[in-house]
Amino acid sequence: MIKAGIIGATGYAGAELVRLLLQREDTEIVWYGSRSYVGEDFASIYRNVTHLVDEPCRDDDMEQLSHLADVIFTATPQGFCASQVTEEILSRTKVIDLSADFRIKDVNIYEQWYKLKHPSPQFLQEAVYGLPEINRESIRGARLIANPGCYPTCSFLTLYPMVKEGLVDPDTLIIDAKSGTSGAGRGAKVPSLYCEVNESMKPYGVASHRHTPEIEEQLSCVADRPVTLSFTPHLVPMNRGILVTAYGTLTRSVTPEEVKAAYDKYYADEYFVRVMNPGMVPQTRWVEGSNFADIAFQTDPRTNRLVMMGAIDNMVKGAAGQAMQNMNLMFGLPENTGLKQIPVFP
Amino acid sequence: MIKAGIIGATGYAGAELVRLLLQREDTEIVWYGSRSYVGEDFASIYRNVTHLVDEPCRDDDMEQLSHLADVIFTATPQGFCASQVTEEILSRTKVIDLSADFRIKDVNIYEQWYKLKHPSPQFLQEAVYGLPEINRESIRGARLIANPGCYPTCSFLTLYPMVKEGLVDPDTLIIDAKSGTSGAGRGAKVPSLYCEVNESMKPYGVASHRHTPEIEEQLSCVADRPVTLSFTPHLVPMNRGILVTAYGTLTRSVTPEEVKAAYDKYYADEYFVRVMNPGMVPQTRWVEGSNFADIAFQTDPRTNRLVMMGAIDNMVKGAAGQAMQNMNLMFGLPENTGLKQIPVFP
Amino acid sequence: MIKAGIIGATGYAGAELVRLLLQREDTEIVWYGSRSYVGEDFASIYRNVTHLVDEPCRDDDMEQLSHLADVIFTATPQGFCASQVTEEILSRTKVIDLSADFRIKDVNIYEQWYKLKHPSPQFLQEAVYGLPEINRESIRGARLIANPGCYPTCSFLTLYPMVKEGLVDPDTLIIDAKSGTSGAGRGAKVPSLYCEVNESMKPYGVASHRHTPEIEEQLSCVADRPVTLSFTPHLVPMNRGILVTAYGTLTRSVTPEEVKAAYDKYYADEYFVRVMNPGMVPQTRWVEGSNFADIAFQTDPRTNRLVMMGAIDNMVKGAAGQAMQNMNLMFGLPENTGLKQIPVFP
Amino acid sequence: MIKAGIIGATGYAGAELVRLLLQREDTEIVWYGSRSYVGEDFASIYRNVTHLVDEPCRDDDMEQLSHLADVIFTATPQGFCASQVTEEILSRTKVIDLSADFRIKDVNIYEQWYKLKHPSPQFLQEAVYGLPEINRESIRGARLIANPGCYPTCSFLTLYPMVKEGLVDPDTLIIDAKSGTSGAGRGAKVPSLYCEVNESMKPYGVASHRHTPEIEEQLSCVADRPVTLSFTPHLVPMNRGILVTAYGTLTRSVTPEEVKAAYDKYYADEYFVRVMNPGMVPQTRWVEGSNFADIAFQTDPRTNRLVMMGAIDNMVKGAAGQAMQNMNLMFGLPENTGLKQIPVFP
Repeated sequence: MIKAGIIGATGYAGAELVRLLLQREDTEIVWYGSRSYVGEDFASIYRNVTHLVDEPCRDDDMEQLSHLADVIFTATPQGFCASQVTEEILSRTKVIDLSADFRIKDVNIYEQWYKLKHPSPQFLQEAVYGLPEINRESIRGARLIANPGCYPTCSFLTLYPMVKEGLVDPDTLIIDAKSGTSGAGRGAKVPSLYCEVNESMKPYGVASHRHTPEIEEQLSCVADRPVTLSFTPHLVPMNRGILVTAYGTLTRSVTPEEVKAAYDKYYADEYFVRVMNPGMVPQTRWVEGSNFADIAFQTDPRTNRLVMMGAIDNMVKGAAGQAMQNMNLMFGLPENTGLKQIPVFP
Repeated sequence: MIKAGIIGATGYAGAELVRLLLQREDTEIVWYGSRSYVGEDFASIYRNVTHLVDEPCRDDDMEQLSHLADVIFTATPQGFCASQVTEEILSRTKVIDLSADFRIKDVNIYEQWYKLKHPSPQFLQEAVYGLPEINRESIRGARLIANPGCYPTCSFLTLYPMVKEGLVDPDTLIIDAKSGTSGAGRGAKVPSLYCEVNESMKPYGVASHRHTPEIEEQLSCVADRPVTLSFTPHLVPMNRGILVTAYGTLTRSVTPEEVKAAYDKYYADEYFVRVMNPGMVPQTRWVEGSNFADIAFQTDPRTNRLVMMGAIDNMVKGAAGQAMQNMNLMFGLPENTGLKQIPVFP
Repeated sequence: MIKAGIIGATGYAGAELVRLLLQREDTEIVWYGSRSYVGEDFASIYRNVTHLVDEPCRDDDMEQLSHLADVIFTATPQGFCASQVTEEILSRTKVIDLSADFRIKDVNIYEQWYKLKHPSPQFLQEAVYGLPEINRESIRGARLIANPGCYPTCSFLTLYPMVKEGLVDPDTLIIDAKSGTSGAGRGAKVPSLYCEVNESMKPYGVASHRHTPEIEEQLSCVADRPVTLSFTPHLVPMNRGILVTAYGTLTRSVTPEEVKAAYDKYYADEYFVRVMNPGMVPQTRWVEGSNFADIAFQTDPRTNRLVMMGAIDNMVKGAAGQAMQNMNLMFGLPENTGLKQIPVFP
Repeated sequence: MIKAGIIGATGYAGAELVRLLLQREDTEIVWYGSRSYVGEDFASIYRNVTHLVDEPCRDDDMEQLSHLADVIFTATPQGFCASQVTEEILSRTKVIDLSADFRIKDVNIYEQWYKLKHPSPQFLQEAVYGLPEINRESIRGARLIANPGCYPTCSFLTLYPMVKEGLVDPDTLIIDAKSGTSGAGRGAKVPSLYCEVNESMKPYGVASHRHTPEIEEQLSCVADRPVTLSFTPHLVPMNRGILVTAYGTLTRSVTPEEVKAAYDKYYADEYFVRVMNPGMVPQTRWVEGSNFADIAFQTDPRTNRLVMMGAIDNMVKGAAGQAMQNMNLMFGLPENTGLKQIPVFP
């Protein structure tokens, strides 16, 4: 039985981890960490687990938890994990950090975009960027996982084969992304109120969103040269789902079949990535509640551009599901253990 | 391996059956019936099962299917199952009918409310009303199950212990129910369009909805006298979920603790019914995507009434999940096999 | 030119007053009161009035405002208006209070349900309950208006003729009400977050909501005897709209035409009340953004009950629109001045 | 009194015309045309005008109507207006066509994108593209107006000053647009059902949407050279609103203030176009129900691109409101007559 602890269990991503972990028979949740609700029953806050969880919320003592858990998930604000993790903790337990603390290897870029002094840059090189579709082998042996951001997961999976194969010019990349509102978290802020979000949409963080350097760093690795791109997230009135529509100029004339073959080269054997046939488009409803990423594309000879599209559930493949996918790899389990949920529709 | 066939697989309830059955390891779907889409790939219509289902839709030949399947689910319009089912079919395979054909034992009442001539009244007495929480033993041995309606399931579970214990006067029962829009089905009708439903709510079928006699018949059995009640359904702009708010005059002065105890008497051992503590209310989000029914109540000494409240997911406990719960009983399996999904939130 | 001041202009009801008043050519808004945003541009908070309003938010100094304004609207929390209003203020200006401070004439009942000591009971008798459809003449001469609550407005208009005509037994009244989320206000609370409200519904304040005694007091006046009733509000995932479904036992056998005639007796000449023909139901979308109240009914001989249904926009007829309707009466203007907006659909 | 006739009055755009025209005191609607509902009361279909309209729906006889009306609005499918309009009709009455029939001057491009043979190319040169912000003078004298598409209106207003001033390279333009669902019309199709649209988003018409050549033709005029661009519309779960996020490479280094000044050069005197200050973003909720277009931008020195953003209500500025704005110009009235509605929020 794997013992798992969650710090930040009462945020949306943390609670999604609870939902996914509870449905496994090989894992036990030993710690429902939530600074805001210490002492309160977890099931009194997330009533979906009424009668299924009978545990109080605990504080965020990562050191203490590391003595109890085989794996710790930190679904916490930026800076928390990096300020708590130590060599001792990592020697005792595996850590999967859902925050951005260890995603960006260049500490200067991290500090510039996040306006934070990085508390433990010494772990940056060790931490593995937890996108199994590209880093599977490194993840298996890792002690510390930087679980990717929701937008970066969807953006990267959508663009990766095209950049890798050199089909699109990396200098022309534009990513227009749209997200449901769970990505904004459970903080009580006026802009997140129902009446403010419902029946409206807006861009935000234009040319300044923190997920930009994360996407750029990963694509730079793939392209083997620095990639600078435009990234615009939008808020859409729905709970779950991220849709990415990305644009790049083609480096040569291609048929839809060639593009499909290039995607298949990388994803044909991936359980969680479903490349759609030419002419189709992804819809977030077809991945909702699941760990799937649906990818499609459209060639446009008129403009000599390729439109690349991807959809994920931001709470699953964009957060808790991917974290569990990483956990599976770290524990030598089949990668889709506990992650075979079929998307819920309608 | 249980072989299951679905007739009406491309309606919302049928597709929910697909979702639930596919996630089982002990069952195989051998027939995706859909008259409207014969020959088309099921996964081209419900893209959530892309890469998971590689089967075309078939016609609605129940006779042929009965040679292939251990259990047939009919998620079809009123009248279909009753017009197709035969003694031969029932001798070969179990049938779980999600339509109303066999729910109402009094054929006159059926024909009066449904405006249909019943095609096979000879099976009415044999058919078991498939609400496991009251008919568990009969279900185990049944060949033909009348799977309850969504509103009746939620209404009955909410009212049953109070009527059974005589705490409320059956002559005073009023059920005000609210449903998400998936209950309206997948037919292409103007009133079901997004822009017609969104940002609006309405009552419908006032004093005339067909689920009324179904609820009345079941409660009459419990009360051991004829029960006539008011039932008003409402359409609410959301996908899934039914909420029932029911009113009854108390037959005697009771404390909240007594009411709770009366509910617990019937539901304490029920996996899928979660009775909430006094002072709490059910919310559909806490059951979404799951087979749970959350029940709560409020005593009101001012009016001498009891307010009884219940919430279910109309697609799961109100249709496909309950059908699978019945299937489990009919095959001698643990009742919650394949039904331990935790509600999805947000 | 009528000079109007608003205290509490940045709440949803206050901002709706701004929207309605700005569209008039005979009125000028001289005060955008908002304690939370003093000094900030009103148009920086409600950007719908960008380029239309160039005024900062001011504090809530009702005394100072009374020297500037012909009419003051207080769209403020309970207790504010009652704690500020004075004889001097009322001698200088008209006051329309959108809070509950002066709605309930029995101060004991107010204090019991609102858990507040009433700060100025001396004005309770003078204050006119501002429902023009019943108190039109009193409103014309009033200095202080208690603008009705949203639920009470919809409930009362739905029930009033039936109670007045004695068609339903007042001891049997049950009001099941459903509201969009704008009624919860603009406070930053977790239960009002988009992801908490969306795709869910719930009852709240069961047998304890503060609008109950307000409805009861008004109906008691009409019935000329004390009325005690059940009132259950529900939260529904939409921005605007209240739907009331009310139940009462018929005192005698009636035809739908008789019921319609009884409604018409009271409402045939009312511009804002639209009684629907037998067999129809109200929908909130048909009143959205307008001051209309749509009323319908269904006789049910099976249960000997009458189902009465009403729909309003809670922000307009349930708050700001009705306040302006009262203002029109107080200033001797046609009652629908500035209130002829046609409902917005879709 | 202006006599107006509407053909296609029961579609969403036609009904929005009804809403806007009814609120005017200088105009009378003499014809509610709706082939699908001939003989039925208009108010029985659009119940928002209950008690306000007492007219049946009529057929689509444009010839007959031209004898009765001073202005005819055709809110009809592609091909209808062009197949009916004649010199005789135009000699008697003004025609404002909300379809695409006369928007694209190059008949070959029209026929290629719309897969229709143009029935009356002889009127193409006379028809004025009805975007008042650029064609005000021509509109005043026109007999036949091609009312712009919803996406083109929002896209053009967002891009126009930047292209005109040469600040962005026309070869690099990418328009990523998002629309509420009313744009899909009132046809009863499965993909427009509530449960299909709600809680999901998708791109559609990728690299093939018919509004692409309309945008290109207008921007080509402005740029004085052929413009070919990428245009991707998306469907978002909300009723009203279009948001455009457009990308272009800067032709030179600019400050935000310079960009703002370039927008102001064209829009400072436009009542309906509201250019936002640097650092702000448009949100559809701030224009809902109104004829405003909110425009904003973000310079991005990292990528040397300009992000241009615009929001309109697709039913108003994107259809019926703009049509009425054109009507005002054609009748010599102030341009915002009947169009001063303040956006409705929430």
